[in-house]
Amino acid sequence: MGLNIVDKQQYLEEREKLIGADRSLRRDRPAVHTRSALETEADEIMHRIRAEEAAGIWKEDHPDVPHPFPGMEFLTGKKIVEKTRTFEILMPKGALLHIHIGATVDARTLLDLALQQPAIHIRVPERLDARNISSVLPELMPLTPEFYNMDGEIVSSNSYVPNTWVNITRAREQFDPSLGGPEGFDRWIIDAMTLRPAEAYGTHNTVTKIWEKFQSTFGVSGGLVHFLPIFKQYLRIFFLTSINDGISYMEPRIDFYFAKALTATDGRSTITHREVLQLFEATVNEVKEELTKEGRGDKFLGARIIYTAFRALEPKDLYYYVDDCIDLKKEFPHIIAGFDLVGNEDELRPLIDYVEPLLYFRERQLQEGVEIPFLFHAGETLGDGDSPDNNLYDALLLGTKRIGHGFSLVKHPKLLQACREQGILLEVCPISNEILRLTSSMPMHPLPIIINNGVSVALSSDGPSVFGNMGLTYDFFQFSMMLPAEKKDALDSWETEWRAFLEFIVARYKGSLPN
Amino acid sequence: MGLNIVDKQQYLEEREKLIGADRSLRRDRPAVHTRSALETEADEIMHRIRAEEAAGIWKEDHPDVPHPFPGMEFLTGKKIVEKTRTFEILMPKGALLHIHIGATVDARTLLDLALQQPAIHIRVPERLDARNISSVLPELMPLTPEFYNMDGEIVSSNSYVPNTWVNITRAREQFDPSLGGPEGFDRWIIDAMTLRPAEAYGTHNTVTKIWEKFQSTFGVSGGLVHFLPIFKQYLRIFFLTSINDGISYMEPRIDFYFAKALTATDGRSTITHREVLQLFEATVNEVKEELTKEGRGDKFLGARIIYTAFRALEPKDLYYYVDDCIDLKKEFPHIIAGFDLVGNEDELRPLIDYVEPLLYFRERQLQEGVEIPFLFHAGETLGDGDSPDNNLYDALLLGTKRIGHGFSLVKHPKLLQACREQGILLEVCPISNEILRLTSSMPMHPLPIIINNGVSVALSSDGPSVFGNMGLTYDFFQFSMMLPAEKKDALDSWETEWRAFLEFIVARYKGSLPN
Repeated sequence: MGLNIVDKQQYLEEREKLIGADRSLRRDRPAVHTRSALETEADEIMHRIRAEEAAGIWKEDHPDVPHPFPGMEFLTGKKIVEKTRTFEILMPKGALLHIHIGATVDARTLLDLALQQPAIHIRVPERLDARNISSVLPELMPLTPEFYNMDGEIVSSNSYVPNTWVNITRAREQFDPSLGGPEGFDRWIIDAMTLRPAEAYGTHNTVTKIWEKFQSTFGVSGGLVHFLPIFKQYLRIFFLTSINDGISYMEPRIDFYFAKALTATDGRSTITHREVLQLFEATVNEVKEELTKEGRGDKFLGARIIYTAFRALEPKDLYYYVDDCIDLKKEFPHIIAGFDLVGNEDELRPLIDYVEPLLYFRERQLQEGVEIPFLFHAGETLGDGDSPDNNLYDALLLGTKRIGHGFSLVKHPKLLQACREQGILLEVCPISNEILRLTSSMPMHPLPIIINNGVSVALSSDGPSVFGNMGLTYDFFQFSMMLPAEKKDALDSWETEWRAFLEFIVARYKGSLPN
Repeated sequence: MGLNIVDKQQYLEEREKLIGADRSLRRDRPAVHTRSALETEADEIMHRIRAEEAAGIWKEDHPDVPHPFPGMEFLTGKKIVEKTRTFEILMPKGALLHIHIGATVDARTLLDLALQQPAIHIRVPERLDARNISSVLPELMPLTPEFYNMDGEIVSSNSYVPNTWVNITRAREQFDPSLGGPEGFDRWIIDAMTLRPAEAYGTHNTVTKIWEKFQSTFGVSGGLVHFLPIFKQYLRIFFLTSINDGISYMEPRIDFYFAKALTATDGRSTITHREVLQLFEATVNEVKEELTKEGRGDKFLGARIIYTAFRALEPKDLYYYVDDCIDLKKEFPHIIAGFDLVGNEDELRPLIDYVEPLLYFRERQLQEGVEIPFLFHAGETLGDGDSPDNNLYDALLLGTKRIGHGFSLVKHPKLLQACREQGILLEVCPISNEILRLTSSMPMHPLPIIINNGVSVALSSDGPSVFGNMGLTYDFFQFSMMLPAEKKDALDSWETEWRAFLEFIVARYKGSLPN
């Protein structure tokens, strides 16, 4: 390469060519070359704001954040992020394509919803005290009225009998003052539903250790989210807060791995998967109508469900779920967006274990004339050539349309090429990756490798209520499971929002930045 | 991909093919398929030892290393590394291809060498006390006899006059007891020549911040290493400790960026670059003879110098160095291995600034009939598309034979391909990368991406006396600047060592591992 170059002019020409060839795979290359004057101006302003912040707020030592830097550990640096102008500028984000329903509404709000429900009860396996409060997890569940427990000892009482259910509001109000009283109760519950910096960056500093805590948060919140009266409100809040963050379309993953997913209003009977989908659809329509009345109908283009099952299932038990998914797709073709298997790839079963039911699933879809794209989690691991990493091969061979995470994809030259050529989108969740210890900071994330290889990316939040990363940074519409006509409308609508966003940046900041 | 597969058997065949295609670029693929029974057996034993250690010593909390894991921050986990069997098994490593001469001998040993020299003096810009000892750096230098200072106040005395030179041994002996006396003095000097965990992982937790400290260590040790009586002993120790670590060939980078590199025996005159090369050559021969007498002549195959200049030079000043390098190569063709430019890429001048003197250098080599390969540092950065990252384009266009670090190479599909096709070797320094904050732990290092793209790699130590990573993990001979006949001998010799190594593992551990 370049060995016969003799003069500088020729060198610079060769250099231009080499850089062009190296960058030619990037999907944004044409767009960068044809961008409007407004886009260029807004981009320059954003660069200046970020440079100013890197030299300012990110350089100062903050009393509770020593040695900060842009892209540092999210849970530690979050308070600084929230003070920046970069954060304050609300970008139209399009679609949110990777989020787990059980982690969509912030923990404080979910607890408030629970406190309004007399059915919700709490128990612990041993009496709570100052010594064990940071390790004992609450179990939360709706009970049927005949089991409501409005008296008896609460979880921090000396005479509490382990594993006795107690009404949540009463447990909170009478919570031992030495443990902080009601505020201490709230802190305990919220800590059990979220990850703290001391865990992610200290006691649980590896993928395996932090996943244990991550998994446990779903156990705690699940007892609340799965109660129908809470779930209705929860869905509304998820939609509305996302919309207010500039997201206009969502495809949450809903775990149907408990054959009976939700508990009905009386805490007694369970509701069917059909009823879950009806509720979801009704809530989408309700929110759409409200926004239309407010003249903001264009801010919400709808939502679909990605049907998921759990990677701990016996392969033979997956047949039930794939059949169930087909039945639901036939009845709600506009609601079911795709199918996935979820759970810690490093510890649970690899995709190859499920190849028989998954091939059966595909065959049955052909017979039934329905199409349910695979949208598999794969490669959410630091490994190379081990079984979680090998999930990438199986996801591709099974014809996945998108890959959840695909963190280890960058280790596979052939698979990067396949994703690029087949237009397979990567749902990349940078903050999730950092907190779950796949990367230690944003500058170390492999995202640029993926982009430079021409693979499409949708940035996603994964489990925002657990990670504290409510909202999004950016997304693309074109890989959502929207119908073609919907996509066109969505893109038109996004273009309008995008222009307004650029105009806002220029109008607001032009002239206010130092030269 | 794979969308028309219907049954499991066919699926498994397609899967095998896909994995084969994805892995086909790896250079070790043929070797893995043809390895001997002994290699397979030793490999299995090593896997078991590592699995056992991951579940044992790396899982326990150690009093001074909380929450350890294999591949954790090196400066924190080093004590555990040294207790493992994996570390105790001495592998034949072949060549050491990336190491800076000023950081090759451990700091304690260098200080001991300095304490034997009455010429070595020390000074500080302000009197040392408990408050400033962790931030004030010592300046060390040989003085000519008429300036020897054997009385007067030492650096920690109340009446020390800032910037006064004091004999190092006297300064040490009289060092203030409240600062730890002589031991405190040693600690202070050694800390100034090394990086501590509290710096790399706390106060200096970004590339920019830790480089400041890294750079400063060379300023402290440089005053000692550049004194001829020390340098002679220093080179011997570098060769001998490397040989004892299983390294049999070295190509240290020597910085000639001070036009006059070393100070002669009297601390007065300086010696020429010619004399440095003569000394180097004489020391190589001396060590070879000694080893031959001991019957270990095959353990040391020689050493060469990579001539380096500093990236802070004005481009016009580089002409002096490239001419100097050509003169030296003509006189010492067997000692000069190549040419490089060094220093923090993120802060100093990019290669493109030097394109004119470098093209001139190549042209003059053609005229003079000498060949001095470029062995450029490039891409030692977290950036993508900025000037330190762009150094990779220039290194390749200028025809580099190896790349020092190339940490950001994985972001460049076209450049990975060029390195693979043109056989350009990457000198990868994992521990250096981790301490200098390009990666946070070994599992997060991009090395597997490089290997899976079929690019050759030589693992190197970079600055072991500063990082504390004396010795190596592995290396290859075939990309050193050895002559073809030397390479053949070196490979034969390595094969012998390799076989002995495998036999040792099997003999020592077979039967002693639990099933």
